[in-house]
Amino acid sequence: MKAAGKQKIRMGMVGGGEGAFIGAVHRHAAALDGQIELVCGAFSRDAGNNQRTGDELCISPDRLYSDWQQLLKQEAALPETERMQLLVIVTPNQLHVPISRAAIAAGFHVFCEKPAGVTLAETQQLAVDLISGNSLYGLAHTYLGYPMVWQAKELVQNGTLGTLRKIFVEYPQGWLTEDLESSQNKQASWRTDPAQAGASGCMADIGTHAFGMAEFISGQHITEICAELKSHVPGRRLDDDGAALFRTDGGASGVLLASQICAGEENALKIRIYGDRGGLEWQQMEPNTLVVKPHGAPVQVLRAGAGQAGLGAEASRRCRLPAGHPEGYLEAMGNLYRDFAAAIRAGEKGTPSGVPGIKAGMRGMAFIETVSSSQSSNEKWLSLPVID
Amino acid sequence: MKAAGKQKIRMGMVGGGEGAFIGAVHRHAAALDGQIELVCGAFSRDAGNNQRTGDELCISPDRLYSDWQQLLKQEAALPETERMQLLVIVTPNQLHVPISRAAIAAGFHVFCEKPAGVTLAETQQLAVDLISGNSLYGLAHTYLGYPMVWQAKELVQNGTLGTLRKIFVEYPQGWLTEDLESSQNKQASWRTDPAQAGASGCMADIGTHAFGMAEFISGQHITEICAELKSHVPGRRLDDDGAALFRTDGGASGVLLASQICAGEENALKIRIYGDRGGLEWQQMEPNTLVVKPHGAPVQVLRAGAGQAGLGAEASRRCRLPAGHPEGYLEAMGNLYRDFAAAIRAGEKGTPSGVPGIKAGMRGMAFIETVSSSQSSNEKWLSLPVID
Amino acid sequence: MKAAGKQKIRMGMVGGGEGAFIGAVHRHAAALDGQIELVCGAFSRDAGNNQRTGDELCISPDRLYSDWQQLLKQEAALPETERMQLLVIVTPNQLHVPISRAAIAAGFHVFCEKPAGVTLAETQQLAVDLISGNSLYGLAHTYLGYPMVWQAKELVQNGTLGTLRKIFVEYPQGWLTEDLESSQNKQASWRTDPAQAGASGCMADIGTHAFGMAEFISGQHITEICAELKSHVPGRRLDDDGAALFRTDGGASGVLLASQICAGEENALKIRIYGDRGGLEWQQMEPNTLVVKPHGAPVQVLRAGAGQAGLGAEASRRCRLPAGHPEGYLEAMGNLYRDFAAAIRAGEKGTPSGVPGIKAGMRGMAFIETVSSSQSSNEKWLSLPVID
Amino acid sequence: MKAAGKQKIRMGMVGGGEGAFIGAVHRHAAALDGQIELVCGAFSRDAGNNQRTGDELCISPDRLYSDWQQLLKQEAALPETERMQLLVIVTPNQLHVPISRAAIAAGFHVFCEKPAGVTLAETQQLAVDLISGNSLYGLAHTYLGYPMVWQAKELVQNGTLGTLRKIFVEYPQGWLTEDLESSQNKQASWRTDPAQAGASGCMADIGTHAFGMAEFISGQHITEICAELKSHVPGRRLDDDGAALFRTDGGASGVLLASQICAGEENALKIRIYGDRGGLEWQQMEPNTLVVKPHGAPVQVLRAGAGQAGLGAEASRRCRLPAGHPEGYLEAMGNLYRDFAAAIRAGEKGTPSGVPGIKAGMRGMAFIETVSSSQSSNEKWLSLPVID
Repeated sequence: MKAAGKQKIRMGMVGGGEGAFIGAVHRHAAALDGQIELVCGAFSRDAGNNQRTGDELCISPDRLYSDWQQLLKQEAALPETERMQLLVIVTPNQLHVPISRAAIAAGFHVFCEKPAGVTLAETQQLAVDLISGNSLYGLAHTYLGYPMVWQAKELVQNGTLGTLRKIFVEYPQGWLTEDLESSQNKQASWRTDPAQAGASGCMADIGTHAFGMAEFISGQHITEICAELKSHVPGRRLDDDGAALFRTDGGASGVLLASQICAGEENALKIRIYGDRGGLEWQQMEPNTLVVKPHGAPVQVLRAGAGQAGLGAEASRRCRLPAGHPEGYLEAMGNLYRDFAAAIRAGEKGTPSGVPGIKAGMRGMAFIETVSSSQSSNEKWLSLPVID
Repeated sequence: MKAAGKQKIRMGMVGGGEGAFIGAVHRHAAALDGQIELVCGAFSRDAGNNQRTGDELCISPDRLYSDWQQLLKQEAALPETERMQLLVIVTPNQLHVPISRAAIAAGFHVFCEKPAGVTLAETQQLAVDLISGNSLYGLAHTYLGYPMVWQAKELVQNGTLGTLRKIFVEYPQGWLTEDLESSQNKQASWRTDPAQAGASGCMADIGTHAFGMAEFISGQHITEICAELKSHVPGRRLDDDGAALFRTDGGASGVLLASQICAGEENALKIRIYGDRGGLEWQQMEPNTLVVKPHGAPVQVLRAGAGQAGLGAEASRRCRLPAGHPEGYLEAMGNLYRDFAAAIRAGEKGTPSGVPGIKAGMRGMAFIETVSSSQSSNEKWLSLPVID
Repeated sequence: MKAAGKQKIRMGMVGGGEGAFIGAVHRHAAALDGQIELVCGAFSRDAGNNQRTGDELCISPDRLYSDWQQLLKQEAALPETERMQLLVIVTPNQLHVPISRAAIAAGFHVFCEKPAGVTLAETQQLAVDLISGNSLYGLAHTYLGYPMVWQAKELVQNGTLGTLRKIFVEYPQGWLTEDLESSQNKQASWRTDPAQAGASGCMADIGTHAFGMAEFISGQHITEICAELKSHVPGRRLDDDGAALFRTDGGASGVLLASQICAGEENALKIRIYGDRGGLEWQQMEPNTLVVKPHGAPVQVLRAGAGQAGLGAEASRRCRLPAGHPEGYLEAMGNLYRDFAAAIRAGEKGTPSGVPGIKAGMRGMAFIETVSSSQSSNEKWLSLPVID
Repeated sequence: MKAAGKQKIRMGMVGGGEGAFIGAVHRHAAALDGQIELVCGAFSRDAGNNQRTGDELCISPDRLYSDWQQLLKQEAALPETERMQLLVIVTPNQLHVPISRAAIAAGFHVFCEKPAGVTLAETQQLAVDLISGNSLYGLAHTYLGYPMVWQAKELVQNGTLGTLRKIFVEYPQGWLTEDLESSQNKQASWRTDPAQAGASGCMADIGTHAFGMAEFISGQHITEICAELKSHVPGRRLDDDGAALFRTDGGASGVLLASQICAGEENALKIRIYGDRGGLEWQQMEPNTLVVKPHGAPVQVLRAGAGQAGLGAEASRRCRLPAGHPEGYLEAMGNLYRDFAAAIRAGEKGTPSGVPGIKAGMRGMAFIETVSSSQSSNEKWLSLPVID
């Protein structure tokens, strides 16, 4: 134990063993700023996997747990200065709400992968729990940690774009072009299994990112949707592709695409927003650039960077490096962790400042349920449940 | 008069006076390859404009006509070796069919701006005329003259992409962001006037390009559409923006965007097509590049250029210059003219080889009418009229 | 013969038969704006080639000549209203000065491919001829016809960049990576033959473009050079690659690269200029974009286009189309022709307004001779001959 | 102290207090993979700065030292299982060798910022020390941690490019466009002070990166150089800009640019290499892309990503995320740290596998001294001292 002085936030993790994708992302991101220490975990229900993962991560053997129930129980029993403060949940979707609720009941803060759950109803129960507890709850919408996403939001807020008219958000991937789930690919298997992923595949997995991005930057709520979902690969049980027309409460309209069968695409989340004074464009695969398109004047290219000219405060504080030293996906997630750690230190409650929370989680669930309904409906426009 | 030898094709033009846009495009494009000579015109109903335009273009004064009726009548009276062979129609939409039909009746070939007309019904009458006559009829879908569009079509045809699944075609422009039609902008005025433009503004003007491009490259027909059209600028009488979900007869689905209020956008027609073996992407603003995205292998960048490695015959013959010497919009249109001139020389009938014709025209009209119907319908999916 | 009214400028051509590259470029470019008519030519010393080329181009058989001497003689004998006004010279380099001088002596205007000749001395003789005659003389530095090159020049002139410090100009091509000259490639054969190309291969062919571009945009003269030239392909008799450090009379310094053995490169002429207030960047392969980089403010992307916001008069008048409708290499050359035709109509003498002339030609020759000397010198810096 | 099991490598740092740039980079990068723990530091000679930095970093107060001498002395006195294993040196250049030598003498491993020192001679002394000791020594050429730089090296090694002919490496920055050193900018102050930076400013700071990159990817040594260095800002004592022609021991030639007064540029390190079979291009600001340009075949775009098609083993193992999830500068540096930690665990000696070492350090010093000599020499070509 180190001598007195500022201490790192103590973090635990459920899920994220060998073969997982997002668990390692969380660990890199949490470690990045030296404010958080991974002290315990239940990384896999497979004991060997769990052991190997814990060892590779230098986890003390006595804090490597066989399952999440053990983790919560035993950590809660440790002295306050030693026990985990923040639990990260990186399991398949169907466990998100149960573990979140149990962790909150045990007094821990929770940072959970999206989507928040598998139904809107269970997510609303979690929201109720949060109101009465002292826990912070964050949802890992990684892309909302990028500096230029915040800069985009600021351009909307400060009127640079004028009154918003159009929102085009798209998220094409190609990795599910083939039937990976039949060949033991862990990522593909649970994402295409309704029992683990919920009612939607592609829309839950990445459509929610596109939806959340559109609402976050625009500052508007999507209120009506007309969607088509498809499953292109024979035998696949959940949608691997979809598109939706939508309308917002601010009078804008738009299109949302999300697909995992766009062969040759990597992870091409992109958003364009147009108002009556100008437009903007941001692409996740080139995240340090924000293109601003004023009506009747030359395009401007805003660039991320610490101390960079033309950036607002929210974007600036999310940059660690001068412009031209690219920061990426891990740094975006790291920004969520840095803010979460600061919120814990500051004694915040509910949703940590700078981090998406339960409301974003409920809206995402409303989106998933509405696009799923739209797919099986002949009615052109369906309204999203109201979440405020 | 020059001595014997190969002669240039003699061309006339209706429309395209001062203040017009597309007329000059046609003249540049027709002149480019030295195969066509502009010999007569009725460029404007305004006599002064007509005179100035004719003089600037070195048109012999005796072949500058006050209106299209005079042009047809007097040219028909000239000796066969002197009179116009090909009439180019670059008027507002409502005159496309009447002039086309009169020109065909007088025995001239016709190259007409899109859309083919203002209703599907009148366009079908024109189609009937063409069956019985000896005239060639071409429709100026300029973008189908680009070499890499033909290369894209070839990649679909030869199976590089596998079975097609998704088609995303978009055409954002920003020039109608403001109410230009109230301030004497000729381009804006007629395009937003139902009497001159027909039932649709944006969808007729550029949506048809997007629709035609999707059908041309994919080799499939769009059969069902679910659309939303909007008019964002107060007082505007026709749609300036729209989006549609669609399905094809080949089992693919997709999204079509067309908008003229995307502030800051220039002329950003773009198409992406994905099959189960790979994808492709082409953008009009960087037309000499075709990005091919094989599933599970590195992206390839195919480039236009005479004699360029990896190009098929149709793309190659549409390039005048070696790779790296950019060809653009005028050269694309020039390719249509070069093929039209060759078709005249070859004595072809109906649709000139390599040039969009009346069938593309009718399909475009079917598209316009279906998206317009969809806008006012609560039914989710509407079928396009069958045109074969 | 058409009735009275404005007449097209009558043009003749020497060179440019089948298998040539640049002759067709000139013909497309000259035709583009409908102001110039190709009326005669001596396209090849091979009679069959000459005949086929003339026929394809609809040249009247009586004005298709066996060689340039015949062309000059017989055209001079035609009535003034019929005879050629402008002679275009697209032969290998060693004929540039002899034909130019003969044409000028016969009273014709001349538009000649670069370089102006094969030695500075002969080019200076041509310059002397021009002083005493009434002919216009233009040099086909095609790239100086691009609108955004003029915009770049304006940004330097109006102080946007401040005091210039650095000029980086590069021109990598890859087409001579292999020994094409041994396999009957006409383009490669004469360009690597000292008897036809002169003292330099790559530097004369494309280094002069890079040199001319640097001087044109910067408005400064390159005064000192330290160069290395190489011939990479075994057996090749002239340089196929080179680089030079240089200094200007305005206190700037820079680097010039020109190479024809950069495998995989197309025609990647690019220039970057930096002053103490900002920088700019322009690339020939994306010619409609000019990137401006103000020090301490976001990058701006200026775009070519008729009526485009932010463009100066010189750039604007060189655009035929609205932004987003790409214009390319032929249109750039077309701008030189359009200005040349206007200069003929206006009765200008010497160098046509808007077109590079004999001074650019002499400076190019001075560059070629200095880099060649530098290659065989151990002295670090060599001064260019003074041309003013 | 955690229970038994794998332990993190214990790291200390000299330099990197508030206002520094690269110290934080090292801390982020070292933390990223959870293999290294920062346990002690002497971050600033300013006691307040040192204290604040240590506190922010959660350093135990008893291991926060007033200077590097104290750090070495007191850490050496700690039990082996507690004391620092690896010292990171992020001070101005003039301290690099003295601290490195002292740390090595005390038995610590060293990871030092570049350049290795301020003279070749002192760096060679350090090299001698390393031969006799047990320490590992790494040099922080961050850019050599990027996956696609290793992929580029592999393409050269496996003959994809054929015999190398040309190497163009450039590194333009704009941040020293103005006289920042007079206005208390810490970064600018020491870098332009000969007492702290050594004989060169720009060439030592970033020219060495360009030089090292060229040698690393090509696998060749630069043997001759012809350079011009400049100081553009009045009063500046060291070069802020320079360019060099060079030749390699493998028969290639090339150009190296490095400048810190290219107004508007960020951190635009870029390398292009051409052989007789193809070329490649990599840019640091878009580090996950490697463009491969085979002669006579379409360009290929290789992309970083864990498990990505077409990547070699060295590139693959340096990717943490699937393609499309951008990794950046911190991850590149993190790759050096991950390899350094593995080398410590494996008991390696000398240069850690995968990390640049003392030989790269000596070659960099030879480069700095040669370009400095070339600047003041009238001889065209100077040879680099031989370092093998």
